[in-house]
Amino acid sequence: MSVYPHTKNHEHANSFGVSVYIALLHHPVYNKRKDIVATCITGFDLHDIARSSVTYGVKKYFVVNPLPAQREFAGRIFDFWMDEGSLEFNRTRAEAFRLIAIRADLDEVIKEIEGIEGIKPKIIGTSAKPRGDISFEELRVEIRKAEKPYLILFGTGWGMAEELFLKVDATLPPITGNGEYNHLSVRSAAGIIMDRLLGGK
Amino acid sequence: MSVYPHTKNHEHANSFGVSVYIALLHHPVYNKRKDIVATCITGFDLHDIARSSVTYGVKKYFVVNPLPAQREFAGRIFDFWMDEGSLEFNRTRAEAFRLIAIRADLDEVIKEIEGIEGIKPKIIGTSAKPRGDISFEELRVEIRKAEKPYLILFGTGWGMAEELFLKVDATLPPITGNGEYNHLSVRSAAGIIMDRLLGGK
Repeated sequence: MSVYPHTKNHEHANSFGVSVYIALLHHPVYNKRKDIVATCITGFDLHDIARSSVTYGVKKYFVVNPLPAQREFAGRIFDFWMDEGSLEFNRTRAEAFRLIAIRADLDEVIKEIEGIEGIKPKIIGTSAKPRGDISFEELRVEIRKAEKPYLILFGTGWGMAEELFLKVDATLPPITGNGEYNHLSVRSAAGIIMDRLLGGK
Repeated sequence: MSVYPHTKNHEHANSFGVSVYIALLHHPVYNKRKDIVATCITGFDLHDIARSSVTYGVKKYFVVNPLPAQREFAGRIFDFWMDEGSLEFNRTRAEAFRLIAIRADLDEVIKEIEGIEGIKPKIIGTSAKPRGDISFEELRVEIRKAEKPYLILFGTGWGMAEELFLKVDATLPPITGNGEYNHLSVRSAAGIIMDRLLGGK
């Protein structure tokens, strides 16, 4: 039985069988000067990406930050939206927040998915730089035929540090619109990538 | 000559000839109880939607709010990102912010576009309710062949008030992923809609 009886269970809401997970990484990422840093969690990252995740049938949205104070901050926002009053006021937010899991690092996330699914997920990197080795269309088709779970990584700050790309099985190209400008917010980019890969069209 | 010589001019950056404008409406929109209200401008709405707008070659992003204090608030954020220090620190933000125009109401926006283009834009509504009368694919094809400008409207709060739909020429269907959940943030929805209509794929 759901812990949150007022909310609908959108798990496995996607129209294909495979489980897709996403993770928003706050470390190790670059800052503007290419130093490796841990970035802060913002409330909008929780809300917007959780709502996109429910929309596209993502199974869990991992918010990954190594700083205990940051995880506590995210936990307070989480608790606020999951309490009875908020459920009453805005049920659709609570439905989205149910997908959020706040974790300390990527390895923990990978192990957790392996525990749930019984198999390691295929890990997909995203980048605003042209380093992609699988197209959106290829991955879209692949996911629909896949038998193992997927984990899609999103970086914050000035992007995922190089060491993270050692852990991915494939990387998507940057989202370009129709010019050369290539600086979407991670919230918009995550929504667009989910639409391209998981949209029901 | 550009007022902001450090920024690139992304006007007409889209790969087709027609001008596309967007407007984020803070009034008249519904609140949760279906009252008609004016909502507040949030900084993330300015940033995220401006960055998506540059990416997809939108010509201008109108932020529409009838409350002078709200327009002043947005103006302060705008000035902050357009000043020399911010340009130096984060040029891509300034490039996005150049697209923003803060206006009091929709009629003013329509007249302004008519002044720029010499012809009234075709106005497209968006809604999270199933009232659409043109598909994403139809509009995508139409825009590429069009000779007149387009203005795409996005609502805030619990959506655009009924009276606004009297002004539109067509309305897009809601974005559904692959379940029934249909509560994207306006920031994510705007990005996904621009990708579907204006993406260079």
